[in-house]
Amino acid sequence: MTFARTTTTFAPPVMEARRWLDGVEFPPDRPLINVSQAAPVDPPPAPLRAAMAEMVLSDPAVHLYGPVLGLPQLRAEIAEQWSASYSGAIDPGQVAITSGCNQAYCAAIATLCAEGDEVILPVPYYFNHRMWNDMAGVVTVPLRTGPGLIPDADHAAALVTERTRAIVLVSPNNPGGAEYSAETLRAFLELARTRGLAFILDETYRDFHSQEGAPHDLFQDPDWADTLIQLYSFSKAFRLTGHRVGAILSSPERLSEVEKFLDTVAICPAQIGQHAALWGMRHLRDWVAGERLEILDRRVAVVDGFPRLATKGWELQGCGAYFAYVRHPFPERSDTVAKRLVRDAGVLLLPGTMFMPDHMPDAAHGLRIAFANVDRLGIAALINRLDAVSP
Amino acid sequence: MTFARTTTTFAPPVMEARRWLDGVEFPPDRPLINVSQAAPVDPPPAPLRAAMAEMVLSDPAVHLYGPVLGLPQLRAEIAEQWSASYSGAIDPGQVAITSGCNQAYCAAIATLCAEGDEVILPVPYYFNHRMWNDMAGVVTVPLRTGPGLIPDADHAAALVTERTRAIVLVSPNNPGGAEYSAETLRAFLELARTRGLAFILDETYRDFHSQEGAPHDLFQDPDWADTLIQLYSFSKAFRLTGHRVGAILSSPERLSEVEKFLDTVAICPAQIGQHAALWGMRHLRDWVAGERLEILDRRVAVVDGFPRLATKGWELQGCGAYFAYVRHPFPERSDTVAKRLVRDAGVLLLPGTMFMPDHMPDAAHGLRIAFANVDRLGIAALINRLDAVSP
Repeated sequence: MTFARTTTTFAPPVMEARRWLDGVEFPPDRPLINVSQAAPVDPPPAPLRAAMAEMVLSDPAVHLYGPVLGLPQLRAEIAEQWSASYSGAIDPGQVAITSGCNQAYCAAIATLCAEGDEVILPVPYYFNHRMWNDMAGVVTVPLRTGPGLIPDADHAAALVTERTRAIVLVSPNNPGGAEYSAETLRAFLELARTRGLAFILDETYRDFHSQEGAPHDLFQDPDWADTLIQLYSFSKAFRLTGHRVGAILSSPERLSEVEKFLDTVAICPAQIGQHAALWGMRHLRDWVAGERLEILDRRVAVVDGFPRLATKGWELQGCGAYFAYVRHPFPERSDTVAKRLVRDAGVLLLPGTMFMPDHMPDAAHGLRIAFANVDRLGIAALINRLDAVSP
Repeated sequence: MTFARTTTTFAPPVMEARRWLDGVEFPPDRPLINVSQAAPVDPPPAPLRAAMAEMVLSDPAVHLYGPVLGLPQLRAEIAEQWSASYSGAIDPGQVAITSGCNQAYCAAIATLCAEGDEVILPVPYYFNHRMWNDMAGVVTVPLRTGPGLIPDADHAAALVTERTRAIVLVSPNNPGGAEYSAETLRAFLELARTRGLAFILDETYRDFHSQEGAPHDLFQDPDWADTLIQLYSFSKAFRLTGHRVGAILSSPERLSEVEKFLDTVAICPAQIGQHAALWGMRHLRDWVAGERLEILDRRVAVVDGFPRLATKGWELQGCGAYFAYVRHPFPERSDTVAKRLVRDAGVLLLPGTMFMPDHMPDAAHGLRIAFANVDRLGIAALINRLDAVSP
């Protein structure tokens, strides 16, 4: 008896959570606070929209097929800017563009794993990583994290088997909000290299890291590409979610394998999004810096407001980039709590059951708050509402 | 010993063929005739580009995430237009949008197959179907076709085993150019239904079918969705290749499974492409009709010009929509011939070895000519050049 690949995994969490809103009325004096998804709610800044409109009218290339591995100018721009910002040596041939960062992950796994192979994910994990592993026939090996939701390379070492092919870290973390230190990231690179594994580092939220400058020195290692696979997204920095542009950095040899996957599942990334990302990289550096400060300010608002909830038994386990990950004080499981908060508090967030296997006890207690779309007033309202319904 | 999924398949043919051009000079009086890819070389018509530019400037939704299964208005428009054109009853809930038609195929297979399952593909097949099967751990069972490259349902029946999950037809066919009759398609639907298989019908080139009106009556079957999975592409009709928009029609239950795959590999289709496709469906019907007549005229040019090549031992095995599939008269294998034609004739086309397993004898003899981008003058030049180098 076999099951089709999609039956091995669960329904998309964000879409499932959206269905919890069906039939619920949110009165004008208490509108929905939606902290379920890490996504900008505003379009890209006006100068970028104007540049894109001009491209649509005047540049035929934005409407036609392009190379499978992406726009050569964008690959070169990434190589150049990354080399500067990480103080490393990154060649354009070590960069490929994908239709969003999720696809970069899928492509990486396709080059690494066969049926029954294993991949280590710290918990709580990003659910789409788990879902792809399931559908690819890859066994997800959960790695419990310590205080602040930080994973430990020594603990991970104990989970490595003959079938392990990769360790995956997301920093700043989705869903946990944790920013992993340079030392932590270095330790995982060394573990992976020593054991002949790939180290997949998803830096989708890098542009909103609380630390100025490079968050790690991995690209200074001249042999980084033998082990490191970095993933990136243009969705957040330039508000291009609807255009689907991400990136994967690895060895040219691995990117030749990536090319097979991308050719088949996408043919090429959407061209207008790639051109927009390139324009953004060249013109919006200051604007992104301002966006970062705004997100960091919201993070402060969450941290500053949290002590009131702490007195009711809430615990802030991680907070950074777009996310706070909290332990709730309710007696029910987190999925029950999350559904109840829609009605009782007018708040939509995602439960810990979506970020780790059900059998892990922590799944029952966690909640993810994607606060990036909510301003200081909204964050104050959110904390008020959670306070009001707390036991 | 296991191999990563991508190592189980071959390099993308179109990209490989492009590399054959490296270092070859094409003199001004004999420029390259590129008939390797089925892709428009011009951008969408000016009114569509203007509409897209306006959306980019004024509609924030084209820049943001949308539903995983696509823009509701586009799903509804497809349901309405398809119901009319196929004289059937198609509900918006039976339609999903994908990031191109390749992705629709990948999603369909993910809902049908597990490791080691089998899918029947007539040969010559579309190489990306074969590549996805390989990477998904699915065994491709080749079905030999008869005169005119037409597959026979009775022959297919003999290939069905306990592990067979689907039969895939592409009509009009890529690479073969064959247009399958309504009777052939009906026979495959019945076979699939009787044996409990899915029948995947890829109609990417439907808008360039030589027959006016619906090419089959399958959607008139009130239970079509229990067996039929239709795939479609907006890339060709509206010249939106660079925007990646396709569609899949199936039961709502299967589309819930498709949603898991698409959420993970794409999150959502690019929004601007979906809005452009919707605009095109509402405003460009006459324009597409004109495009179809132009392609049909080029098809006539190929058919009319071919007798000269036939005297040199060439055989036109199939000709329709964007493609002619021919048997060449050279003593070498088709891949050797194709590489040689770049230098000797200034012609880039794809060899039969890319469209069927190497061990099948026909692989050595076939060549695909994607003539859609070449006008009558170009087709005359192509035939002249092939004639000149023929043995």
